[in-house]
Amino acid sequence: MNYRSALAQMKPYTPGEQPPPGKFIKLNTNENPYPPAPAVVEAIRAAASGPLNRYPDPVATSFRRAAADALSLPGPEWILAGNGSDEILTILVRGFVGEGQKLRLPYPSYILYRTLADIQGAAWEQTPFVDDWKLPAAFGHSDDDLKLVLLPNPNSPSGTIVPPDEVAAIADSLTCPLVVDEAYVDFADDDCLDLVRQNENVLVTRTMSKSYGLAGVRFGFLVAQPQVIAELAKIKDSYNCDAISIAAATAAISSQDWLADVVAKMNTTRDRMASELSAMGFRVTPSHANFVWCQHSSGRHSEIYEYLKRNQILVRYMAFPDWGDGLRISVGTDDQIDACLLMIGRAIGSLG
Amino acid sequence: MNYRSALAQMKPYTPGEQPPPGKFIKLNTNENPYPPAPAVVEAIRAAASGPLNRYPDPVATSFRRAAADALSLPGPEWILAGNGSDEILTILVRGFVGEGQKLRLPYPSYILYRTLADIQGAAWEQTPFVDDWKLPAAFGHSDDDLKLVLLPNPNSPSGTIVPPDEVAAIADSLTCPLVVDEAYVDFADDDCLDLVRQNENVLVTRTMSKSYGLAGVRFGFLVAQPQVIAELAKIKDSYNCDAISIAAATAAISSQDWLADVVAKMNTTRDRMASELSAMGFRVTPSHANFVWCQHSSGRHSEIYEYLKRNQILVRYMAFPDWGDGLRISVGTDDQIDACLLMIGRAIGSLG
Repeated sequence: MNYRSALAQMKPYTPGEQPPPGKFIKLNTNENPYPPAPAVVEAIRAAASGPLNRYPDPVATSFRRAAADALSLPGPEWILAGNGSDEILTILVRGFVGEGQKLRLPYPSYILYRTLADIQGAAWEQTPFVDDWKLPAAFGHSDDDLKLVLLPNPNSPSGTIVPPDEVAAIADSLTCPLVVDEAYVDFADDDCLDLVRQNENVLVTRTMSKSYGLAGVRFGFLVAQPQVIAELAKIKDSYNCDAISIAAATAAISSQDWLADVVAKMNTTRDRMASELSAMGFRVTPSHANFVWCQHSSGRHSEIYEYLKRNQILVRYMAFPDWGDGLRISVGTDDQIDACLLMIGRAIGSLG
Repeated sequence: MNYRSALAQMKPYTPGEQPPPGKFIKLNTNENPYPPAPAVVEAIRAAASGPLNRYPDPVATSFRRAAADALSLPGPEWILAGNGSDEILTILVRGFVGEGQKLRLPYPSYILYRTLADIQGAAWEQTPFVDDWKLPAAFGHSDDDLKLVLLPNPNSPSGTIVPPDEVAAIADSLTCPLVVDEAYVDFADDDCLDLVRQNENVLVTRTMSKSYGLAGVRFGFLVAQPQVIAELAKIKDSYNCDAISIAAATAAISSQDWLADVVAKMNTTRDRMASELSAMGFRVTPSHANFVWCQHSSGRHSEIYEYLKRNQILVRYMAFPDWGDGLRISVGTDDQIDACLLMIGRAIGSLG
């Protein structure tokens, strides 16, 4: 079987473990521990009785109108809807990076970007963060092969944020587009939407999977200038978002009061997690996302991870070559976090 | 803005018109006129109360088990689920065809394949059907650049089918994979699933959009040998099918009695359409799909299309350069088809 050579050589991306529901306290893939807004469930039930035998709106007009309104964008033509922000990221890489060309990402960050380059037969280049998660000037340098730069902001695994004025300076220094992946931005105080209006080369991606509690529904979107949206729309499948997801996402983005309440609640839990982990000997990176990145003075992160897993608590153990390792723990409900902290205490006590 | 050169040059695919619901009798995009099985609607309502804040099963296990059972396949590892067969086709082109390489399709057939080649920066080659929709030997010839051959079977716009033994002979003569796109196969008497077991190079795509009445839900799948499924799965987004679509598609594929009833009803309507259109002076190609392709002795197809559209009936006018034009009319309910036939009669009467 003759696959494309790029494909034959690549290793697939491995997302966080997804065990059967109910068996674990699941704090490993940054899902929202709370169900979505009641209006979302109602919208799905209503859509179940809709004309499912008909193709959906190919450009998710109802969602784009509601999102433009919720985010104070000039209009729906600034938005491209996708089957999760994963699809949006795929479209961006296919739109800008050809075989043998290159994309850039910071390090450590979201390694899916590397997989997207691999699938495309393109190269990727990692620029290490410096001085506790700041970006060096090299992140804004251009070269002929560089066709796209991706910045998760807030970043994962760190939860840190690069301020919008620094992002603007990077975009100004680049000759290629800069994608700001704002999957976690609703848990932060700043975002880069204003930069999209100022610079055609700034593209912002968002997801409904995290703050809106809709990981199961698969809905994400791109914010970019209208001429960019129009060009990138050529790549998407004709009907990339289904009728039920469009209804769910429209209801969700229209539930801004619900969002504010859930985010406030989760950020309170996050800050408590951070202080209790610090008290247990962890170095905790100040987080602007719905997870915390922590490194214990013992350095024995994989053992703590395994101890927790044996006790039905899943967190993410992450090891970055030439950099270090640690634990990324999603913000759960207060009860889930209490159980997790208790078990971490026992894990540390068992290290001997 | 520096898009990939392939993208900058290409024209996007234009699907059939999707007017707001209710305004037209819609017979232009081969949707099922009937709602999906009751079990599907129940499954969606149940999924609405499920853990939507959690990521879905990345490989749609419940669907693949039910589909393997329904289609008498050896097991779920022979199936790759996708966000519509559109996504499956995209994965296939990305899996096999690199920039500067080539895919082949018959002509006239499904022009989306050309768009998929264009997006990839690849070339496409059309082999004309001969002798009333038979495939010439040239369709099975290989060359070094040819990396994928796509055959819609039943074909659109014709509704004709190439018998499995002829498809097997084509696959045997090719050195690259042959994709048999069976979007409409439930309305036909034959399919090519057995060929997948016999030849690694035969890949069959299916959709839930047509016979199962789920165009709004976006669900399709690939049937191929397990080692092929495993390799192509590297290309898909991690969570390409959402939790609700998986539940809906699982319920649908498990409703084989419902399917048999709906298909029997639609095929009866189709055969009546064909005979009444013949009586009105159309040459009707015998159809094995949920639409008929017809050409009127007057040759004035675009005028008939426009007349119907002015009277709130949408059919598909299709013109193929160097080949000819005609009307593709989806099988609707009997009432819809009665209204359409009445209006076609008036349209012909008005031609003068």
